[in-house]
Amino acid sequence: MSEADAPSDFHKTITDLGGAALADRLRFVTEIDKLKGILRQTPLLDRSRKENDAEHSWHLAMMACVLADYAASEVDMLRVIRMLLIHDIVEIDAGDTFLYDTSAAAEAQEEKEQAAADRIFGLLPEAQAKEFRTLWDEFEAHESADAQFARAMDRTQPFLHNFLTEGMMWQQHGVQADQVRKRMTVIADGSPALHDLVQSLIDEAETRGYFGTA
Amino acid sequence: MSEADAPSDFHKTITDLGGAALADRLRFVTEIDKLKGILRQTPLLDRSRKENDAEHSWHLAMMACVLADYAASEVDMLRVIRMLLIHDIVEIDAGDTFLYDTSAAAEAQEEKEQAAADRIFGLLPEAQAKEFRTLWDEFEAHESADAQFARAMDRTQPFLHNFLTEGMMWQQHGVQADQVRKRMTVIADGSPALHDLVQSLIDEAETRGYFGTA
Repeated sequence: MSEADAPSDFHKTITDLGGAALADRLRFVTEIDKLKGILRQTPLLDRSRKENDAEHSWHLAMMACVLADYAASEVDMLRVIRMLLIHDIVEIDAGDTFLYDTSAAAEAQEEKEQAAADRIFGLLPEAQAKEFRTLWDEFEAHESADAQFARAMDRTQPFLHNFLTEGMMWQQHGVQADQVRKRMTVIADGSPALHDLVQSLIDEAETRGYFGTA
Repeated sequence: MSEADAPSDFHKTITDLGGAALADRLRFVTEIDKLKGILRQTPLLDRSRKENDAEHSWHLAMMACVLADYAASEVDMLRVIRMLLIHDIVEIDAGDTFLYDTSAAAEAQEEKEQAAADRIFGLLPEAQAKEFRTLWDEFEAHESADAQFARAMDRTQPFLHNFLTEGMMWQQHGVQADQVRKRMTVIADGSPALHDLVQSLIDEAETRGYFGTA
C-alpha cells in the first residue's frame, strides 16, 4: 500500500470490518487531521511559531467553558463548543484569511468556504452532515446567542495573543488601533464584559506602542 | 515590559480593568496555551511531525461528536467533551508519557500529574477550579460511562494514526501486536463497536507487518 492510497484503502477496510456508517465517520475523522496543518496569523504566547487551526479551535472551546459566566445571554454550552470545534474546518480547503486582509482573496473566501463545507461535512452520513452544516451556517450568520458568544471567543483569543506578544503581528502587518477597535465591536453581541475589557486593552496597547504604523 | 514579566503584568492589568474573577480566568486561558508545545508520540497522518496535546484534545472532542452513536451506554456529551478538552492539561507540567513506556518515569507520572492539576486548575476561581478538577479526576478514574467513552476516544485516535502511518511509531519503539491488543481492551468499556473494529485492525496491521520486533 502506498501512502497516497491509504485513505481509500482505509475506507474500504473499515467498511469491510465495521460497516459503511462507521467507515464514513472515520473518513471524516481522519480527513480533519489536516486542520493541524492550517496556520493562522496568530503567534503562540511563547512567540515560537504561528498557531494552527486545530489547536486554536481547542483553545476557543476551553475559553467558552471558562468564560461562560460572561455570555450576553443564556447560551447552550454544548452547541457553543461544537460550533467552535467545527468553525474552521472549512479552512482545510479554503485556507486561513487574516482578519485585517482587504484583498480580493478575502472577498472570494466565502465562496471557497461554502464549497469546502459541502465537501468536508459531506464525507459524513447524511443526517450528521446536515447537522454539522447547519451548526456551521449558524456560526457564520452570527445571529443566535450561541453563535454570538462563540464569535466573541474567536475574536478575543487572537486579540489576547496579539496584546501579550506586544503587537508582534499588528506591527508586522501594519495594523492600527482603529482597525482593531472596529473588528472587535462584534464581541459586544456575545459578551459585553469581554468587549469592555478588550476596548480598554486596545487603549492600553496604544499607550504601550503595540500597533503598527500606516 | 520584558517578555518574562508579561504574565504577572497582564494579571494586574486585567484585574484593574475587569476585576479579579475575570483576571483569574484569563490567567488560566493564557497558561494553557503551553499545551500547544507538549508533543506526543503520535504522528500526524501526513507524517510531517508529531502531534501536540492541544490539537490532539481538539481531535478527540471532534471524534466524540462524530462517534456518539457508538457509545456503550447513554452519555452526557457536554461532560464527555469537556473531559476530553481538559484531560491532558496536566501535561503542561508533567509532560507526555508514551503509552507503551514501562520505565520508572511512567510510574512517577501520576504523582507529577496530581501536582500539575493542583497548580493549573488552581489558577481558576475556586468553584471553577473544583469543577475542572472533579471532571479530570473522573476521567482518570475510568468508572463513569462518560469517562469510559472519553477514554475510548483517547485510545482509538492514536491507534488510527499508527495504523494509517503503517506503524511508524510502533516500529520506532519496537511495539508488538500483543502489547497493543492489551492496551486497547479498555476501549470496550466505552464503545464495544469501536473495540471490535480496533481489534480487527490489529489483526490486519499484523498481516501487513506494521508492528515492531522484540
